[in-house]
Amino acid sequence: MAEKTIAFVTYPELTLLDLAGPLQVIGTLAALNAGYHVVTVGQTTETHETDTPLAIAPNRTFAQVPKPDIVVVPGGMAGTLRAMTDDTMLNYLRTAATGAELMTSVCTGSLILGAAGLLHGREATTHWSMLGKLAVFGATPVSRRWVEDGPVLTAAGVAAGVDMALYLVARLAGEEAAWQAQFAIEYDPDPPFGTLDWDRAPRARWAPAVDAALREGLADHPELRGRLTSTEA
Amino acid sequence: MAEKTIAFVTYPELTLLDLAGPLQVIGTLAALNAGYHVVTVGQTTETHETDTPLAIAPNRTFAQVPKPDIVVVPGGMAGTLRAMTDDTMLNYLRTAATGAELMTSVCTGSLILGAAGLLHGREATTHWSMLGKLAVFGATPVSRRWVEDGPVLTAAGVAAGVDMALYLVARLAGEEAAWQAQFAIEYDPDPPFGTLDWDRAPRARWAPAVDAALREGLADHPELRGRLTSTEA
Repeated sequence: MAEKTIAFVTYPELTLLDLAGPLQVIGTLAALNAGYHVVTVGQTTETHETDTPLAIAPNRTFAQVPKPDIVVVPGGMAGTLRAMTDDTMLNYLRTAATGAELMTSVCTGSLILGAAGLLHGREATTHWSMLGKLAVFGATPVSRRWVEDGPVLTAAGVAAGVDMALYLVARLAGEEAAWQAQFAIEYDPDPPFGTLDWDRAPRARWAPAVDAALREGLADHPELRGRLTSTEA
Repeated sequence: MAEKTIAFVTYPELTLLDLAGPLQVIGTLAALNAGYHVVTVGQTTETHETDTPLAIAPNRTFAQVPKPDIVVVPGGMAGTLRAMTDDTMLNYLRTAATGAELMTSVCTGSLILGAAGLLHGREATTHWSMLGKLAVFGATPVSRRWVEDGPVLTAAGVAAGVDMALYLVARLAGEEAAWQAQFAIEYDPDPPFGTLDWDRAPRARWAPAVDAALREGLADHPELRGRLTSTEA
């Protein structure tokens, strides 16, 4: 049986942990000989920036992986909004979606799936600060750790990608494989101040950062920027 | 007041998430103008491999950041064991430790701190599969999510780095800053199969992988390999 390919998409200024969390978890599938091959894909294999002081380079180009079986799209802020209007990115995702069994995203990566037209009529999620904006793409925003609707699986913000990835490993290779992955990354979470207290979510504090990202990332796309800006989080 | 520098060390074949988790969390300090500057440092700024299909490049060389205030050393498998015998790495850490207020590690990064002589007489932790091996460096292994002993702060395996990083943000900039970071990465963990059930830790299954990493990473250092191999996890 031919191995299936899981392709993690990269692009400039993505949020590093959106990519690294699920990549580390799903990367354990390769060691299990479970029939999956994991790659990172970008427009080129040149090194590019992230939203941290670490640059990254994917090991394949879009052209080299035209028919992935599963695609994972990480999110970010201004860089993600730019990716939403990048024709090379959107064409890659649209073409991939015609053959892939599953298109997935982490955090605001779902906005890129939305911009590619892949969320219309589907339930989806994203980072809490952008959740309502999914409606611009015809999606029904759902506040949940991850949301599966047909061939689309979207995770909430950043760290939710790890939870989604464990679910995905179990779906692809069984719960025992997910346990192996969870022990491998010693994911026994113990946040020092507890889990999130949503009553203290810094919504007002985040709004200007979201607006600034929309202005910067969509400077040349005022129509889309206007629609996203006028939609509440 | 001069900004303090937090330096994340990179080296070939490190475990990506060991680096990316804390880097994403601690990177939020920069946006808060809390007086901290975050960099990634390596022997060169050339792109190098990780233990995933993603290559990375730090934005500074060791020589450019001779006096960091806080150092974070990620772990890994064979690549980490190689780093434990890399004189450039060890000299960088030893020199940094003379002026730094805090030397920290994630996962088996503590073995590199140990090899640099920085754990002698201290309590420390690491990935569960290697915990006992810290004794080789005169440390007292402690099974805890993170362990602080004087100027040394070590985290357990991989994902524990996120918990440690939140603790560190609170220590450096207050609990409110840690809450901001936790909301930024939407760290509201919900592992689909629950937290780790240590009764089913795959210790026997992991032992050969640890031995293989020791053979590969310390091929040219049989004496150290022997000491680490003969120490139980």
